[in-house]
Amino acid sequence: MSKKFVIVGAGLCGTLLALRLAQRGYEVDVFERRPDMRKADISAGRSINLALSDRGLLALERVGLKNDILPLTIPMLGREIHTISGETHSMPYSGRENEWINSISRGGLNKLLLDKAEETGRIRLHFETECIQADFDRSTIQIQHLRSKTPSFMDAEVVFGTDGSASAIRQAMLQASARLRFDFSITYLTTGYKELEIPAGPDNAFQLKKNALHIWPRKGFMMIALPNLDGSFTVTLFLPMEGDISFKALKEDQDIHNFMQEYFPDMIPMMPDFMEDFTSNPTSSLGTVKCFPWQVGGKFLLLGDAAHAVVPFYGQGMNASFEDVGALDRLIDVYDGDWQMILPAFERERKPNADAIADLAVENESEMRAATADPVFQLKRRIELHLEQNYPDYFSKYSMVTFREDLSYHEAMVKGRKQDDFLMQVARQAGQFEKVNIEDVIQTIQTLM
Amino acid sequence: MSKKFVIVGAGLCGTLLALRLAQRGYEVDVFERRPDMRKADISAGRSINLALSDRGLLALERVGLKNDILPLTIPMLGREIHTISGETHSMPYSGRENEWINSISRGGLNKLLLDKAEETGRIRLHFETECIQADFDRSTIQIQHLRSKTPSFMDAEVVFGTDGSASAIRQAMLQASARLRFDFSITYLTTGYKELEIPAGPDNAFQLKKNALHIWPRKGFMMIALPNLDGSFTVTLFLPMEGDISFKALKEDQDIHNFMQEYFPDMIPMMPDFMEDFTSNPTSSLGTVKCFPWQVGGKFLLLGDAAHAVVPFYGQGMNASFEDVGALDRLIDVYDGDWQMILPAFERERKPNADAIADLAVENESEMRAATADPVFQLKRRIELHLEQNYPDYFSKYSMVTFREDLSYHEAMVKGRKQDDFLMQVARQAGQFEKVNIEDVIQTIQTLM
Repeated sequence: MSKKFVIVGAGLCGTLLALRLAQRGYEVDVFERRPDMRKADISAGRSINLALSDRGLLALERVGLKNDILPLTIPMLGREIHTISGETHSMPYSGRENEWINSISRGGLNKLLLDKAEETGRIRLHFETECIQADFDRSTIQIQHLRSKTPSFMDAEVVFGTDGSASAIRQAMLQASARLRFDFSITYLTTGYKELEIPAGPDNAFQLKKNALHIWPRKGFMMIALPNLDGSFTVTLFLPMEGDISFKALKEDQDIHNFMQEYFPDMIPMMPDFMEDFTSNPTSSLGTVKCFPWQVGGKFLLLGDAAHAVVPFYGQGMNASFEDVGALDRLIDVYDGDWQMILPAFERERKPNADAIADLAVENESEMRAATADPVFQLKRRIELHLEQNYPDYFSKYSMVTFREDLSYHEAMVKGRKQDDFLMQVARQAGQFEKVNIEDVIQTIQTLM
Repeated sequence: MSKKFVIVGAGLCGTLLALRLAQRGYEVDVFERRPDMRKADISAGRSINLALSDRGLLALERVGLKNDILPLTIPMLGREIHTISGETHSMPYSGRENEWINSISRGGLNKLLLDKAEETGRIRLHFETECIQADFDRSTIQIQHLRSKTPSFMDAEVVFGTDGSASAIRQAMLQASARLRFDFSITYLTTGYKELEIPAGPDNAFQLKKNALHIWPRKGFMMIALPNLDGSFTVTLFLPMEGDISFKALKEDQDIHNFMQEYFPDMIPMMPDFMEDFTSNPTSSLGTVKCFPWQVGGKFLLLGDAAHAVVPFYGQGMNASFEDVGALDRLIDVYDGDWQMILPAFERERKPNADAIADLAVENESEMRAATADPVFQLKRRIELHLEQNYPDYFSKYSMVTFREDLSYHEAMVKGRKQDDFLMQVARQAGQFEKVNIEDVIQTIQTLM
């Protein structure tokens, strides 16, 4: 078994896939446009962290890395809500003790995966090399080193496009869309984002509660913060791109200062460099990419963000990509390595789940920036926590999506929405926790499901 | 008033727009990738005709061309349905005498528009010249003659992208999508199409009824035919691309012959060259393009298929594009030539209408290939004809879309769907025309609307 496989993109998804294929004995060439992040400092001051949860951990377990990775994570047990007057309250992610999500550095995780991939001895990593063309008839791609500019052709058993939300492989499929009948959509939110930072305090102390995802919900916009191992927090401001209160409206230093003073006064003392960060860090947009098919002729396959870029509000982007790798791995067994069967089965299985998490992530944006500040929603979450603490079979939508790797995203979405509609109705009618008839609620839910 | 305007694409929409702008006194440069169709034979045997109806005619009237164009048309008074056993029956498009649609040659109409545009003396037509880049910051485009390959930059007051369903201007907007927050989708039907021909009979006689749009509905697929001035009919086979009965399944001559023999036996004697046409003519896919915004900074605007490519099943593609030009023309007056106001107003007004006709066209595919053969649908159409003949205020959905240029597509869709649901229910319950209480029906509809 020494067939040659090509992976375009050595991000999180591509590197995990390479590692798994190598563990199975395949020979893999990986092409990555950026330099080797283990040697060059390409993050350039942008420290990005991600939420790693059960679906992602399960895929890491399949490659035997779960225990290497857990020390890189910071558990976040719940949302820590910061009101405008500076009060805080905690909203645990689950009523069960063993359910939380984990903050992890994208760069740290990616570097570890690259090391482990290289250690297999079956993976050749080619950095600063981009894919400039794909030929779907001949099953070849054309690659080119960024500096030498000498193009060459690669022929492979299968080409995997794990080159992220601006995928070159997907771009080639879009160019051939009429022939492939390749459906494609990209949809932007009116909200954009900018990364800021709360640095560590003296002795690398965390300036906020360490084990939480912090949210400053302000209805039309919000700030969030995730902890890093070095005591800092990566802060993200989500704000409309245009309108009265928007990135566009924040032009002068004074506007920015007034905005912070009015809506996030408690953050100012913790962020001595916020003005510099605000003006020098980029403002980025948030788009959802959907497409289909993901494969061409059993020879090309899109996975991860290349197939389904989602907005970040469910903290599931990386987890969905890792789950892709796990699903593919399972299907290699099911179809005994027959790629003509594996690729179509993969897109059939994963497409409804990718669509589900994409839609859930868009919906969760308004939940985070507005609903977390709404008393009815807070009561609904309190009922759910009570149910999760007392009825082991009860799982909230959030828990089904985040902690139930045995349920597909699609199933979690369908069940979770039904449950949410009912519980919001209960919370609205009851008005306060003491008036909720928990027995009735759990029985109705059991009937609903 | 001698500002310079650039139009990319000299198809139907671009040429009509150029003509109108020139009539208003603007200077216009038009760039077209193909050669001048008045000199080169670029149709290469593919004679394509289109359905011209009231919305398109209204826009042609605005430029004073309605009377030049009517002689190029063949009125189609209704659908002529051909059953598998060779029977035919007529389904008029309307119960009113003055409502029909018109078959017209795309090439003939386009050539006339090019002549009229040139006659204004204010339009420079540049053929075999493509747009290779658009710079949305500087409001310039880069163009290049296909042979000389010398690129040059064009600076304009406004750049109009009327370059069709594969628009280069739209492609440039998609490349800058994250910055422009440019939403885009392309969606293909499972059905594809192939053009065939019924040639004229002896003495240029029409081999089928001249003044009709012919349909051979076969549930999962269909054949249609539109009359040409020379006595021929342009025939289109709409068939799934894949599956048991599909283009993919029709590989050998014998398969094609058996397929025609089984489903379209009455057509074979009229189409002596069908086998040659079938194997040499291309099989094409059918896609819907939606996007937004259509304009950038009051400087770039997409119109026609570039902004909203639709499938052909409502016969409204060209009409929607011409209506775009009429709407823009009206807004130039409303905003007194202030393009910073005109372009945003245009996209606000036209986007919901473009979405409506796109969705109606997709729905009409199944109406044509399946419902026209369904007794309940036929009864519903009979009730509608009766209503249109006896109640001047009653308009079917088809009539509202096709003959009511005073109603927007969106309004026609919303009202028409409501009416259709009700009338299908009436037809299903009544079973036969004699059992329908027409007075009740018209009263309910008046209440519904």
